Amino acid sequence: MSKARNDDYDRQPAGGRVTLVGAGPGAADLLTLRGQRVLAEADVVIYDDLVNGELLEFCRADAIRIYVGKRAGQHCLPQAQIGALLVQEARTNRHVVRLKGGDPLVFGRGGEELAALTAEGIPYEVVPGVTAAVAAGAMTGIPLTLRGTAGAVVFVTGHECAGKSDGTVDWAALARTGATLCIYMGVRRLPEIARALRDGGLAATTPVAVVANATLPEQSVHLATLGSAEPLSAVLHGQPALIIVGEVVRWAEVTRSSGAQQLLASA
Amino acid sequence: MSKARNDDYDRQPAGGRVTLVGAGPGAADLLTLRGQRVLAEADVVIYDDLVNGELLEFCRADAIRIYVGKRAGQHCLPQAQIGALLVQEARTNRHVVRLKGGDPLVFGRGGEELAALTAEGIPYEVVPGVTAAVAAGAMTGIPLTLRGTAGAVVFVTGHECAGKSDGTVDWAALARTGATLCIYMGVRRLPEIARALRDGGLAATTPVAVVANATLPEQSVHLATLGSAEPLSAVLHGQPALIIVGEVVRWAEVTRSSGAQQLLASA
Repeated sequence: MSKARNDDYDRQPAGGRVTLVGAGPGAADLLTLRGQRVLAEADVVIYDDLVNGELLEFCRADAIRIYVGKRAGQHCLPQAQIGALLVQEARTNRHVVRLKGGDPLVFGRGGEELAALTAEGIPYEVVPGVTAAVAAGAMTGIPLTLRGTAGAVVFVTGHECAGKSDGTVDWAALARTGATLCIYMGVRRLPEIARALRDGGLAATTPVAVVANATLPEQSVHLATLGSAEPLSAVLHGQPALIIVGEVVRWAEVTRSSGAQQLLASA
Repeated sequence: MSKARNDDYDRQPAGGRVTLVGAGPGAADLLTLRGQRVLAEADVVIYDDLVNGELLEFCRADAIRIYVGKRAGQHCLPQAQIGALLVQEARTNRHVVRLKGGDPLVFGRGGEELAALTAEGIPYEVVPGVTAAVAAGAMTGIPLTLRGTAGAVVFVTGHECAGKSDGTVDWAALARTGATLCIYMGVRRLPEIARALRDGGLAATTPVAVVANATLPEQSVHLATLGSAEPLSAVLHGQPALIIVGEVVRWAEVTRSSGAQQLLASA
């Protein structure tokens, strides 16, 4: 399969190198085939809280496993330390896999890790993954884009480490795009975000879906509107969740009322 | 692996059903493990031009394969016919897999297919896939989001079937978000889109990357700016390509100059 890509991959220098691998949204079988192969080859695997522990079963028995997790609400580990660790492990001529929840370059801080590797001349590859918003759409039957309704979809972060807000999110500007909005890590600040979107011009009746623990056995789906979503912030406190805002969310409701969609019917 | 999910899946009704499967961005090994398993189970597989033919090797030898492709520039096949075909095949008590490039619900018209299934009471599941923009980021080392630079990323279509523009894309509003913009199917209209984004307030110096045939052996990466990108429209005519617009594209340039990133260096 995909011979040329694999050949390219195998032609990597024999010395140390790093592969950032997207672990996907949660369920272990939403990893890619390439991700599985790379995990099975790795000498060292460095992983997060967001990674399903079952994925580590794909590693060689003798692979070194290093946990560098940081849960929301706790202090962030300095990202620089993770970058330095990747460099240090690669310098021992190892193949290091950095396993990250979702996709490494969508809210994964993978960019900062690539910069650390680049600065030290360490070769790298990135294996993309299924990001949480895409998985939340699939699990609910909500199309993130839809002709005539949403010609664009936005992935935006609703959370940064306390005191480290980067101020690059302009909620009012996002509200005016008419795009479906998929908000990562936004449950804690949901009341504030819903207000900002309404201030930006979205109607209080705009449909909202919150998908907690998407693709995992404990998945739950919650339908509301921008005007009624606020209590979900407390209900889902501490759970990883993805918020979808926009007219396409009505698709989930239509689906639910028809009884055809198993997942929503049991939500 | 992922026992609970698989059990849920196996508990589907014994009658006909449809699984929409995201084929991923191109390279066959960027399919998910779940996608591979579902393909191997299918009685009928209905697929597109955007799907790598190698993926059909995962099907059972006796699976029925139905091609419903529609290339850009040709007339669109009526989506309603594809929906009717899914319903018809499922009604023969078959497990039908609808294999779609990228993710089924991101510019895949999967929403319309789910609506057709829902209307007829056909049970369905969706297996998410790696969408083209995420793959283009991974292949170029461009982080689609980056703290302090881009707190959001937009996926937007640059193309609709001729005469069927849905008018839901507001380029000026997107320009004002400060988000990274990932434009699907936008090569033909690149000059027009670049102008609309500049009219919306983005500087002519805003970096642009165009990734053609991402993840395939013939992949090429082209770096430009909003002011200089126009000729790429002719250069890449007819090739599937993803356009990334935003400050994060500078990461590809930094990477290239360091020589660490194999793919960009050879682009």
